[in-house]
Amino acid sequence: MKNRTFIIAVALCAGIFFATSFANAGKLLEEAKENFAPLPKAPVEKASNKLNEEKVELGKMLYFEHRLSKSSLISCNTCHNLAGSATDNLETSVGHKWQKGPRNAPTVWNAALHLAQFWDGRAEDVEAQAQGPVLAGVEMAATQDLVLQRLKSIPEYVDRFTKAFPGDNSLTYTHMADAIGAFERTLLTPSPFDAFLGGDKKALSDDEKKGLKLFMDKGCVGCHNGVAVGGNSYMTFGVENPYKNQKDVGRFNVTKDEADKYSFKVPSLRNIELTYPYFHDGKVWELEEAIGIMGWTQLGVKLSDKEIGSIAKFLGSLTGTIQVELPNLPPSTASTPKPLLDVK
Amino acid sequence: MKNRTFIIAVALCAGIFFATSFANAGKLLEEAKENFAPLPKAPVEKASNKLNEEKVELGKMLYFEHRLSKSSLISCNTCHNLAGSATDNLETSVGHKWQKGPRNAPTVWNAALHLAQFWDGRAEDVEAQAQGPVLAGVEMAATQDLVLQRLKSIPEYVDRFTKAFPGDNSLTYTHMADAIGAFERTLLTPSPFDAFLGGDKKALSDDEKKGLKLFMDKGCVGCHNGVAVGGNSYMTFGVENPYKNQKDVGRFNVTKDEADKYSFKVPSLRNIELTYPYFHDGKVWELEEAIGIMGWTQLGVKLSDKEIGSIAKFLGSLTGTIQVELPNLPPSTASTPKPLLDVK
Repeated sequence: MKNRTFIIAVALCAGIFFATSFANAGKLLEEAKENFAPLPKAPVEKASNKLNEEKVELGKMLYFEHRLSKSSLISCNTCHNLAGSATDNLETSVGHKWQKGPRNAPTVWNAALHLAQFWDGRAEDVEAQAQGPVLAGVEMAATQDLVLQRLKSIPEYVDRFTKAFPGDNSLTYTHMADAIGAFERTLLTPSPFDAFLGGDKKALSDDEKKGLKLFMDKGCVGCHNGVAVGGNSYMTFGVENPYKNQKDVGRFNVTKDEADKYSFKVPSLRNIELTYPYFHDGKVWELEEAIGIMGWTQLGVKLSDKEIGSIAKFLGSLTGTIQVELPNLPPSTASTPKPLLDVK
Repeated sequence: MKNRTFIIAVALCAGIFFATSFANAGKLLEEAKENFAPLPKAPVEKASNKLNEEKVELGKMLYFEHRLSKSSLISCNTCHNLAGSATDNLETSVGHKWQKGPRNAPTVWNAALHLAQFWDGRAEDVEAQAQGPVLAGVEMAATQDLVLQRLKSIPEYVDRFTKAFPGDNSLTYTHMADAIGAFERTLLTPSPFDAFLGGDKKALSDDEKKGLKLFMDKGCVGCHNGVAVGGNSYMTFGVENPYKNQKDVGRFNVTKDEADKYSFKVPSLRNIELTYPYFHDGKVWELEEAIGIMGWTQLGVKLSDKEIGSIAKFLGSLTGTIQVELPNLPPSTASTPKPLLDVK
């Protein structure tokens, strides 16, 4: 009898606990839905760059196409490596002739969802972005002429551009970038947090839920919100306290507006645990340190180690990788311009 | 009536033609089978490196693992790019600090079938080969210590090595190379020529068959035979006439035997149309030019353009690529040694 009472009591307690836990999870979910949105089910198109299968496949080939670089050694995938984080996990990237670039390479996963591209937002979308690194002297160091000569010398590309961009002038530099952008728009990585936002309250662990609550309560969500958990605004790095290594004037270079000095696009936090090192300069390797710096520079609060750990737990729920199959790139022909390594 | 006779006559002629053609194809197939062998249906194991699924998957990850290089930027796939020819299609490879290597990077497709690895055969198999480039100063420039520190700092690798190599000391430099070798053994690319050798007489076009006949009649098959159409012997480059650019003493460096001066492993011709530029020095970009040089230096014959074209047609039937899915590489941890780019 005693036993039975005990069991009933335990069952009641458990019932109350679970009910409370569920009610809280429900409230948390509601609050989360006010601040965030799950990944779209399908890629978001650009009106002037409608997606089709041929274009996306061509874009994938071009993404891995090392012949878009002067050396024929560097492709988009060199610095935005899809075998992992879609970054190079370097402080700043290394390009043509082993030159070091000025800023950290952001991940391409979900990048199409940002309000603009590059740390300073100087390209309006992934299509515009893809035109940049191919020509940048410290990156792929090519010229439009070289790239077009290479692509036009390869019959399979001529054919694929014609199919992806029907019309008179299919194989252009802009279309090259449009195809790459089209492929990048498909690189969406659903995570446990998306399942949670979709209504699956068990998709996050209790620790992750606590971290999410703290992330919202502390004000991180002020900038890191929306579908990409960031990526939808610009913000001065050092609103409350200066960043230790503040040299780069950021978006000021684009707008020449004093108010934009040291301002950068707020990074998306999707897959953030994979995309170290952090910040535009890649000077911070640990996620925990980055969270602490953010609290201090942007919110003016000294987060405790426990709070930092809890927020990091939540950020882990934003990780979601997908499998990518390598394309088979078509061979060069006798008229394909040769690699130019610029070495003796 | 006239028409009918005409039709019968045509039918008879066609019948005779096809019968002859088939008889010839049959004879050609028999001759081909005496000289070549189709790819094995399954990867060929090394007795001391039994294949299993965990090992092959781990090997694939390590093949794409840029953290095996000092810079954390270069992986096996950088110079043996599986998005195409499994080479870098450069004269000679570019490695750490943009240094140029001494010899052309051979393809990894089907490489496990060769009698030895590297142009000079200094590694006995793909497992032994995989130990080399990781440590070579002009390639990945790492040390065994650095590589092991990196891998041991990543829990997923510790776990995967334990599963792939059960025992006390799973995560070793040798096992790293064994896993890469295991993966490489799976990289077999069946081609139309394999279908032909398997009995499908229509797998080769008439032009390809003519080329095959010529390839055997002219004596190319003297060295380029067996399952890899080469890769199973060493030969002096310049048996009959000297090669234009003969500086590299080749296998002599390994054996110190005068007879091995300017001797190299006979390259496999599988996928040869994809793996330009040609020869150990990568100085020849066109397959037709390479065939002409081979005829002159190795056989002492001046092949006509028509003969060269015909042989090239046959060589095209040795192309067969496969699809490879990129692995998802696990993230570094706080204790993972950082990239060392050796730049200021």
